[in-house]
Amino acid sequence: MGYFITIEGGEGSGKTSVLQEVIKLLNNDGYTNIVTSREPGGIKIATQIREVLLDKENTMMDALTETFLFAASRRQHIVEKVLPELDKGAIFICDRFIDSSYVYQGIAGKVGLERVIDINEIATMGCKPNLTILFDVDPRIGLERINKNKDREVNRLDLASLEYHDRVRSGYKQIAEMFPDRIVVIDASKPFEEVIHDVYTLVKRKLEENGYERISK
Amino acid sequence: MGYFITIEGGEGSGKTSVLQEVIKLLNNDGYTNIVTSREPGGIKIATQIREVLLDKENTMMDALTETFLFAASRRQHIVEKVLPELDKGAIFICDRFIDSSYVYQGIAGKVGLERVIDINEIATMGCKPNLTILFDVDPRIGLERINKNKDREVNRLDLASLEYHDRVRSGYKQIAEMFPDRIVVIDASKPFEEVIHDVYTLVKRKLEENGYERISK
Repeated sequence: MGYFITIEGGEGSGKTSVLQEVIKLLNNDGYTNIVTSREPGGIKIATQIREVLLDKENTMMDALTETFLFAASRRQHIVEKVLPELDKGAIFICDRFIDSSYVYQGIAGKVGLERVIDINEIATMGCKPNLTILFDVDPRIGLERINKNKDREVNRLDLASLEYHDRVRSGYKQIAEMFPDRIVVIDASKPFEEVIHDVYTLVKRKLEENGYERISK
Repeated sequence: MGYFITIEGGEGSGKTSVLQEVIKLLNNDGYTNIVTSREPGGIKIATQIREVLLDKENTMMDALTETFLFAASRRQHIVEKVLPELDKGAIFICDRFIDSSYVYQGIAGKVGLERVIDINEIATMGCKPNLTILFDVDPRIGLERINKNKDREVNRLDLASLEYHDRVRSGYKQIAEMFPDRIVVIDASKPFEEVIHDVYTLVKRKLEENGYERISK
């Protein structure tokens, strides 16, 4: 069986860039069977669902409708990609997963955390991450990073109010306290190289603890 | 507040044709504020979701993904159409609603009834029908009716096996036993005119019992 890692955090937390570097280090260590993904993960049905979610004309979309659509997209990604890869023994790393729904729809949004958890319990049917790495950073720092990075497209969420980003950050902290066995908080306000080191050390320790074998070089 | 009626039944049960005639009779009686709908009900977001559901190329669609998509479509239809009309005091009649999911995905499908009920409890958030009329008929009779009616397009479900239609029928009966306060079973094997009479009498009695006022002619 594989090992399932998810990475989470607010805008500008640097999680995606850090992940790329950590994977290089893990590859060098002999962990070569790493598969990365992010919903909808190239799954056609999930991509079609995302188009409905992202359609800018859909201003009437109800918060619960949105939560169900995310759950449907997640479910299909799990069935077509996550579970088959884990069955093959992969280290599967997914950029955002259930905790994004817990925080963005459940806590920062209008649906309520309990309801979002209930919906996602059904959608995932036991397919839970072994480890979730939460990149924690003050949104003031995160948004400054985004604004400096001209190559990165600013999306709808980046433009939301700072107050909203603060709710996202405290939402993530709340979730981390609820699931301490699974979620590890990383201080993402540190310099890039230090964050890479912290995440790399964490993942390596977890893989070793769980007896996950590296493929010898 | 309005009065919410749903009609349910297998293929060829005649529910849609009967409903049209019953509405004419109710209109003649002075019940003029009747609104009819069927999911996705012309709601743009719900229609987009339906396109994903009905895309013939989506053969990989997981049964749970499908259930979430139906729930998302239903939720949006409720928010944009059902609740606003009920708030205006309409007699809102919907051709298929939660019981179709209970039966088609929950009992005849792969998801399991309990899970489909849980998902729809969240999706409807208390927006339950006051009355559900179940058109019960042997699928052999129902399918014969469909085959005789050349104007009606035969859809995917019509072509499913008879064994499947039997499961749908017994599924509906199971649901009727679970929710006796809400669901009334109508013998839809009777001649068309008799079924119209039975449904008309039932709806009129229910409206009167609930003190629902007709608008005087």
